[in-house]
Amino acid sequence: MTMINAYAGAAESLSPEAQALIARRERVLGPAYRLFYEEPLHLVRGEGVWLYDAEGAAYLDAYNNVASVGHCHLRVVDAMARQAAVLNTHTRYLTDGVVAYAERLAALFPAPLSQVMFTCTGSEANDLALRIARARTGGTGVVVTELAYHGVTQAVAELSPSLGAYVALGPNVRTVPAPRGGDAGVAERFARDVRAAFEDLRAAGHAPSALLVDTIFSSDGVYDGPAGFLAAAAAAAREAGAIFIADEVQPGFGRTGEAFWGFQRHGVVPDLVTMGKPMGNGHPVAGLVARPEVLAPFGQSCRYFNTFGGNPVSCAVGMAVLDVIEDEGLMANAAAVGAYLKAGLETLSRRQPLIAEVRGAGLFLGVELAHEGRPASAAAAQVVNGLRRRRVLVSATGPHANILKVRPPLVFTREHADLFLDALDDALGEVD
Amino acid sequence: MTMINAYAGAAESLSPEAQALIARRERVLGPAYRLFYEEPLHLVRGEGVWLYDAEGAAYLDAYNNVASVGHCHLRVVDAMARQAAVLNTHTRYLTDGVVAYAERLAALFPAPLSQVMFTCTGSEANDLALRIARARTGGTGVVVTELAYHGVTQAVAELSPSLGAYVALGPNVRTVPAPRGGDAGVAERFARDVRAAFEDLRAAGHAPSALLVDTIFSSDGVYDGPAGFLAAAAAAAREAGAIFIADEVQPGFGRTGEAFWGFQRHGVVPDLVTMGKPMGNGHPVAGLVARPEVLAPFGQSCRYFNTFGGNPVSCAVGMAVLDVIEDEGLMANAAAVGAYLKAGLETLSRRQPLIAEVRGAGLFLGVELAHEGRPASAAAAQVVNGLRRRRVLVSATGPHANILKVRPPLVFTREHADLFLDALDDALGEVD
Repeated sequence: MTMINAYAGAAESLSPEAQALIARRERVLGPAYRLFYEEPLHLVRGEGVWLYDAEGAAYLDAYNNVASVGHCHLRVVDAMARQAAVLNTHTRYLTDGVVAYAERLAALFPAPLSQVMFTCTGSEANDLALRIARARTGGTGVVVTELAYHGVTQAVAELSPSLGAYVALGPNVRTVPAPRGGDAGVAERFARDVRAAFEDLRAAGHAPSALLVDTIFSSDGVYDGPAGFLAAAAAAAREAGAIFIADEVQPGFGRTGEAFWGFQRHGVVPDLVTMGKPMGNGHPVAGLVARPEVLAPFGQSCRYFNTFGGNPVSCAVGMAVLDVIEDEGLMANAAAVGAYLKAGLETLSRRQPLIAEVRGAGLFLGVELAHEGRPASAAAAQVVNGLRRRRVLVSATGPHANILKVRPPLVFTREHADLFLDALDDALGEVD
Repeated sequence: MTMINAYAGAAESLSPEAQALIARRERVLGPAYRLFYEEPLHLVRGEGVWLYDAEGAAYLDAYNNVASVGHCHLRVVDAMARQAAVLNTHTRYLTDGVVAYAERLAALFPAPLSQVMFTCTGSEANDLALRIARARTGGTGVVVTELAYHGVTQAVAELSPSLGAYVALGPNVRTVPAPRGGDAGVAERFARDVRAAFEDLRAAGHAPSALLVDTIFSSDGVYDGPAGFLAAAAAAAREAGAIFIADEVQPGFGRTGEAFWGFQRHGVVPDLVTMGKPMGNGHPVAGLVARPEVLAPFGQSCRYFNTFGGNPVSCAVGMAVLDVIEDEGLMANAAAVGAYLKAGLETLSRRQPLIAEVRGAGLFLGVELAHEGRPASAAAAQVVNGLRRRRVLVSATGPHANILKVRPPLVFTREHADLFLDALDDALGEVD
């Protein structure tokens, strides 16, 4: 699989300025970087759900889950600037902010999840989680889904099959099919696959260490239901001697509407939870929360120091993000507007036969496109680029890149949803 | 080796407030975190070379190389706040800041080092560098120094022996003694050890991939000279089929005074250079610069996306840090004040027999303490804690924790150096 919605080189339709910038970019950033869209988007400003290009045109952002409380939210910017002007140091000195923020975060989790560690990125959080799992279990065998994405450090890239064939999976990694179907049998099928994968790992000499899943299965294609299906797989992992790690980098911080964390929709309490992306609304802050007995073997034998992790500025930013989510009722908004948008998509699907299924929870939706029962990959690329021309931003996901990934900032309103639905209707109508 | 200058639990001499904060911290952050000093320091404010505790007492910071242009530098804070209020997004959209900053950084390196990739932490930069080295060489064998520290992701922790015995070195890792001695023979000895280590790796089935060294050998004990000694080891690595990676996370950005990057003191151009810590003066920004032909095999087969890496805010911060280093002449200051401080330490060593050797370049100094020819580890701990009581901050390093690590913000002046020397004189006089 190559990267979805990734393009290199400058489209001739772009302004000479944008073409020149792309040429400079390719020269100085080298060959590993990619741009979204056939016609890449040159951004200069963001506010709420809107992003603005160099010509001043406004784009409705229905994609960026990082700027979760809205682009450039003033309370978050203000908290960052105030703290940065007063003190920014590290966790080997005693500071109030990291303790207060960790306590605030911990209070958002069900017992016994209660100890917090800070990193700068979700990749670092998942990488650390694997080290903790290894110390806890003595094993290294990890089970992930077929098209999982957990980050870009060497250790987590080796268990992120969505990065493509060039990044070989580790010998200690097994994949299971994504929990597709949405039927009552999904829990049992998924648990059975997890059980078999751990048995296979054990037979190959890799003792079970962790079941690691994104609880909304974003890169696999967005699989949200039926709520509760994850519990059986978590139990299977524990029976095998592994811990259950919920990767909340994508679904966390209220996005799924029904609960603050994706795992809570499944009525299961993980052994360890990782978080990132929206945690600082774009500021590099990430981390994990663990059950004390899960963290103990690592923490008692091994220290951990992350130079920037848990610094006072990152903690002030993180605290402001939680304040905004709470004060602006963004989780309830994700539930309400998400339900409205999902209903609108379902209505649209009756008029637009390309829409095969609408999945997701809250403001994390997947819109699967199919033609005569087969994945409509080319159509999805046309729709993504067609929406961009209509100044609406989404991308695609899944093994066939045929599932539109819709996850706007949580300040998305019904009016924004209507704009989105109209543009999608148009873009679908334009597909060859 | 246990962590140097690391303590757990609250000292009874602390205020009840500080003791209570430590108790809360240990409960919520868990067992992997450590605090500096027998009597941990509760910080609430920073400015320039000064840090202030909760009682308002000022501490002279002679340790923190992250806040390199001074704590809470207004130009850096301002650049961050301004950009954060306008746009903060990622590298899959076209933005001006990342291109301009990458070009500015690349211009600070000798040809052919010219392509830049961004991460959030030095750990991520070194982790990525290893992936690039593997793609370039086809090998995985890495050589590091005996007490190297390169970061905390799983892959780089496995080649960071300074983390202690609990973190086992990878089977693909060999260590060589630090380049001690400071004599003309150090180049040949170090190169010979590197050559032998790669031969050993090859014999064990691990094809050579990279020689990775911190060019000031900070965690090994600070080994700066004679300038030029690294070139022979780099040549040995290349002869073995490996690339030479200079880890500039500690010495980079002008700290060594004589050159902007530590490797430049050695008259060698690495294949790849990693950077971090002072790059954003505390903001989480890091990255690497590579020769295009070294990056090509990775970039052509594998994409790289780091959600926060190279975002507009991080790039604005990084640009402001470069502006300040240039406009305030901080590299020249590091050279001048570093030389003044080193001369003062050498003078002090004639009166204080515990000082066995003073090493280092610019404002990165190591002060080795010894008693009757043996490492004075306990004395170093007494001096570190004694300086803290005198409101001067340093820590210790090296295999016996007997080398004071002195690396203040680069805005350190001769007056600050005098304060430091007086306090050190006092603290040394107090040693049992």
